[in-house]
Amino acid sequence: MGGRNVHLPESVVVCEVGLRDGLQNEKTQLRTEQKSELLEMFQEAGVRIVEVGSFVNPKAVPQMADTEDVFRRIRPRESAEYRVLVLNAKGLDRAVACGVRKAKFTISASRTHQMKNANRPPEALFEQLGELASSAAARNVVLSGAISTAFGCPFEGEISPEKVAGVAREFEKVGVREISLSDTTGMANPRQVYAMCLEMRERFPGVVWNLHFHNTRGMGLANVLAGMQAGVTRFDASLGGLGGCPFAPGATGNIATEDLLHMCAEMGIETGIDLDRMIAAARLLQEWIGHDLPGAVLKAGKNSDLHRTCEKNEN
Amino acid sequence: MGGRNVHLPESVVVCEVGLRDGLQNEKTQLRTEQKSELLEMFQEAGVRIVEVGSFVNPKAVPQMADTEDVFRRIRPRESAEYRVLVLNAKGLDRAVACGVRKAKFTISASRTHQMKNANRPPEALFEQLGELASSAAARNVVLSGAISTAFGCPFEGEISPEKVAGVAREFEKVGVREISLSDTTGMANPRQVYAMCLEMRERFPGVVWNLHFHNTRGMGLANVLAGMQAGVTRFDASLGGLGGCPFAPGATGNIATEDLLHMCAEMGIETGIDLDRMIAAARLLQEWIGHDLPGAVLKAGKNSDLHRTCEKNEN
Repeated sequence: MGGRNVHLPESVVVCEVGLRDGLQNEKTQLRTEQKSELLEMFQEAGVRIVEVGSFVNPKAVPQMADTEDVFRRIRPRESAEYRVLVLNAKGLDRAVACGVRKAKFTISASRTHQMKNANRPPEALFEQLGELASSAAARNVVLSGAISTAFGCPFEGEISPEKVAGVAREFEKVGVREISLSDTTGMANPRQVYAMCLEMRERFPGVVWNLHFHNTRGMGLANVLAGMQAGVTRFDASLGGLGGCPFAPGATGNIATEDLLHMCAEMGIETGIDLDRMIAAARLLQEWIGHDLPGAVLKAGKNSDLHRTCEKNEN
Repeated sequence: MGGRNVHLPESVVVCEVGLRDGLQNEKTQLRTEQKSELLEMFQEAGVRIVEVGSFVNPKAVPQMADTEDVFRRIRPRESAEYRVLVLNAKGLDRAVACGVRKAKFTISASRTHQMKNANRPPEALFEQLGELASSAAARNVVLSGAISTAFGCPFEGEISPEKVAGVAREFEKVGVREISLSDTTGMANPRQVYAMCLEMRERFPGVVWNLHFHNTRGMGLANVLAGMQAGVTRFDASLGGLGGCPFAPGATGNIATEDLLHMCAEMGIETGIDLDRMIAAARLLQEWIGHDLPGAVLKAGKNSDLHRTCEKNEN
């Protein structure tokens, strides 16, 4: 950092996942028009990767039931990416049917988490992955991968780099070139993130790595910093820190997009995204969701919002 | 980090400032017995530095009016430190009268902040500092220093290392050997913290540096990480993240002690403090204060609190 010893990137890519990971963990459902309005605001702000939704069973995740409609309303920008989550062939069919070009498939690094989440062991997912990858390629859809619980599992506890690499290898085998390491329940710590990212980058030099942190235990931005230092430059974040953790009532969700953008701006790291526009979008989202969102900058404002009065002694 | 390239300490010292900086920014006043009970819990948990209160005008800061009483009730532990804030000779007299051995004096790196806060320019404080230092030494009280708004001022904006060094030099002149860099309103970013700490350590090799972060914009633990990487090993934190920011309603206060301890534990950095006991203390404090505290671990639990069921698809 600061030009002495520690590596920091000149720019990073921030992927907005609030419409998917954020909303999925909220009770309040947004209307399709509201999602579209937010998505348009993201684009106006300069966001170049948006996770639009997921093609899952609408009964299981009603918040995502209108993903087709949201996707069809997008006014696509040049060089922007609109990705969706798919869980199976049926999801991929739905994605293709509405014109999706980028689909993400998630496999857990933890067997227990995978079993609890999808009632199938990782090996079954590996098989499905092969079929999905062929099917996606045949229909001109780029498949990316996500490894959930990559930094810890709420059932198994610690997850070894070996397990993460095992899943990454399966993705690589079928031609997936972009993999997200997901800290699904906010268990990652900076030392681990740094070591994991270095190791994965060395083992899989052809892969573009993405980091997906939750701020569940307050380490979200510290983990981003560690990831940056290990050479990763793509980070998921959710507007307002929308979302939560299904295992911890009251806990915060993804790292907040505005907080990440603000930190980058303060550190002189380019994101290409207009922070003020994203704060405005977060305020609107907060109004619609109907409760306070966990994002810090949303409450405190930017560093550059200077004040004029001061009443108290502080330190 | 991770043994490759990036420096991390084997152990750090965590200073509990909740009874002072935390309570000072809360409307709810704790009773003296409650403060004493918390302080005893800190000691049982292994906390070795506690900021007990401040000797200020009780009309201006009623939360601190009982600092004498709290101090007198301490059952001191060997090698533990109980520090208080003093603003002037009168405060030092009060401190001496109740047996304080360590007093902290704060000067702002920002002229505007100093003027608004104490209606006196930094130079006036420098003069006062000299008198206080002599008086403290004569009465066997160790004086430490704090530089507020060291990473940014809510009125002036950016603060140069030159300004911070200017204040540090005054402290050094009068024999102060321990200085805290305070991010009073949560404006620090990791790149800045790293550079500032390296520079101060180089300029003042005889000084023991302490870092005091607020999590106002979510960067608290990222700043700790950057401070550690720059070789600083003393960090203030407030139980539950108690407190707030007088300039930003709803914004969070100091970094939460439990969150800092949890991150250190996960990273294998020794603190000598029992996290579970501090979480228990934070729960009690939350009950007494009567509203949710911002600490993340307080809501989410530790990484090691594993769960048994899982209902939802997540990533």
